[in-house]
Amino acid sequence: MKPVYFEEGKLRLIDQTKLPTEFIVYSYTDYREIAKAIVDMIVRGAPAIGVTAGYGVYFGALEYQNEPKDVFYVKMKEVCELLASTRPTAVNLFWAIKRMEDVMAANADKEPAELVAILKQEADAICAEDIQMCRDMGKHGAELIHEGDTLLTHCNAGALATADYGTALGVIRAAHEAGKNISVYADETRPFLQGARLTAYELQTDGIPVTLITDNMAGWMMKLGKIDGVIVGADRIAANGDVANKIGTYSVSVLAKAHGIPMYVAAPTSTIDFEMQSGDEIVIEQRDCREISHIGGVQVAPDGVNMENPAFDVTPHQNVTAIITEKGVVYPPYDLNIPKLKE
Amino acid sequence: MKPVYFEEGKLRLIDQTKLPTEFIVYSYTDYREIAKAIVDMIVRGAPAIGVTAGYGVYFGALEYQNEPKDVFYVKMKEVCELLASTRPTAVNLFWAIKRMEDVMAANADKEPAELVAILKQEADAICAEDIQMCRDMGKHGAELIHEGDTLLTHCNAGALATADYGTALGVIRAAHEAGKNISVYADETRPFLQGARLTAYELQTDGIPVTLITDNMAGWMMKLGKIDGVIVGADRIAANGDVANKIGTYSVSVLAKAHGIPMYVAAPTSTIDFEMQSGDEIVIEQRDCREISHIGGVQVAPDGVNMENPAFDVTPHQNVTAIITEKGVVYPPYDLNIPKLKE
Repeated sequence: MKPVYFEEGKLRLIDQTKLPTEFIVYSYTDYREIAKAIVDMIVRGAPAIGVTAGYGVYFGALEYQNEPKDVFYVKMKEVCELLASTRPTAVNLFWAIKRMEDVMAANADKEPAELVAILKQEADAICAEDIQMCRDMGKHGAELIHEGDTLLTHCNAGALATADYGTALGVIRAAHEAGKNISVYADETRPFLQGARLTAYELQTDGIPVTLITDNMAGWMMKLGKIDGVIVGADRIAANGDVANKIGTYSVSVLAKAHGIPMYVAAPTSTIDFEMQSGDEIVIEQRDCREISHIGGVQVAPDGVNMENPAFDVTPHQNVTAIITEKGVVYPPYDLNIPKLKE
Repeated sequence: MKPVYFEEGKLRLIDQTKLPTEFIVYSYTDYREIAKAIVDMIVRGAPAIGVTAGYGVYFGALEYQNEPKDVFYVKMKEVCELLASTRPTAVNLFWAIKRMEDVMAANADKEPAELVAILKQEADAICAEDIQMCRDMGKHGAELIHEGDTLLTHCNAGALATADYGTALGVIRAAHEAGKNISVYADETRPFLQGARLTAYELQTDGIPVTLITDNMAGWMMKLGKIDGVIVGADRIAANGDVANKIGTYSVSVLAKAHGIPMYVAAPTSTIDFEMQSGDEIVIEQRDCREISHIGGVQVAPDGVNMENPAFDVTPHQNVTAIITEKGVVYPPYDLNIPKLKE
């Protein structure tokens, strides 16, 4: 299940706002529309956004390749800035754009038309590496999952959040593929319902037992002894191990800690912001409150009511049992062990 | 805002499944339809269900008043059993039905037609007392609320959950009416969205500042220091102070405790099950999972996915700072102090 891929000269995106009742694939060649697709959450999930932005930069270069070199670079700056302005929290977006910018800088002697092919290769590489990283995370993380475990996950850190296979769900997939008899509780994850619409759909499609619950049931399921571990993805991890992830992750981490349940975060090293000392510095995106007041076009709140809609929260590193990366599993003390991943 | 009242020989119920976008009042004279209205959550909230069931018993008596006395009593047993079978968790339902049965037993010498008038008086008394109890809870509870406080509430323990004024929201109303400058965060309360549809609507209508959030934001708002206290209602309180209330209350209580925030429960003594030693014995209603998979008719989960839909959870007494009743505020140790309320 690939939510973002390049085919026949076009970027294809599964419309994740329509799943699971409609499966629609859109085609893009205009970087402005690609930027809008990120804003509108046609594509979402930190790694998938990074892959999408990489191709966005490529389509920008394709559009401006016949401009004089100085104009080309001015335009490419605009392209990168537009793509970077789409969503503030996930660091993979900025990481992927920077990789594309670095490639341009390293090939500054070349003509725009030549750069286009190099940028395409780089975007393809980001995409291919993302899939490989998910597979590697799966391999490392599966060792933490025991036969018979029931895992709680929040939001969608699945194939649909990456180029394929998934981060948190990649670990679950790998454990399942290794023959472990595991099952999953999926928080529906309001307001955007990624758990109900995407995670339940992905796991059901793969034949991994999944039970969908509302977010406010998670603590009660822990109290009833039904949850053996929590595994989530991440949108940005600070150098001290603080984790920005979908709103609600913080609550789940507090609940897990109160019940003595391990809390795992699965994310590629591209999600780690090595320059950021703590999660306090992470910018939390505030999204349109219509996501709360309306569900599928149906109004569920009174007109004009005040609302808040932070899209993410920050889980302090003290609540994180381990971080699963493509390079291996990282344990506390994170401020010592995370910098080692940079090497 | 009275969700249940008697007028022109009919029981009127506001359709709480349609609020806040539609304000529809239905009229009932058939106890079977009244029972169905409770099942379908046209009326909900422990005290409001009790009041409704009281009138349901009256309409049963009205229907069977011309039967021979022995037939009348057989029919009335059926009426009470039907009304009692509607929802298992809230104790007020059984409490109100028992009050009506006790009145019948105390007047066993009278003819059915005479009993009808007595039962009507008793149903009216349950309704009137409920409003008075809410006012008294408000008075006692308001003393726990400080100038400038921001309170989190879950589900709807408002006028719409009682005959009028509310339990948890009654306390908030009383503090507001006393001139305290307070504000409220309302959890939307999935799956039925009582917080979004009812609590936000009630508070907005009364001009009490309210901010609507999704359930999974509550912990993050506590982390950000935005919540000074939590106040909720209850569907059943065991003799040891364990509290059954809307699903999600348990998670809120764990989060409040982890953040050092007081957790108050407001409920009339009719909500206390003095015979039940602990919350472990409380039957938790499991409702139709379509409440999770569909919102306002819109499908938000894949076809055939497994779900769980417990309508309530149990908050252990260790997580409850105080219980606000019409007789005063009760503090731990609850196993000593709750029985005193029986006197």
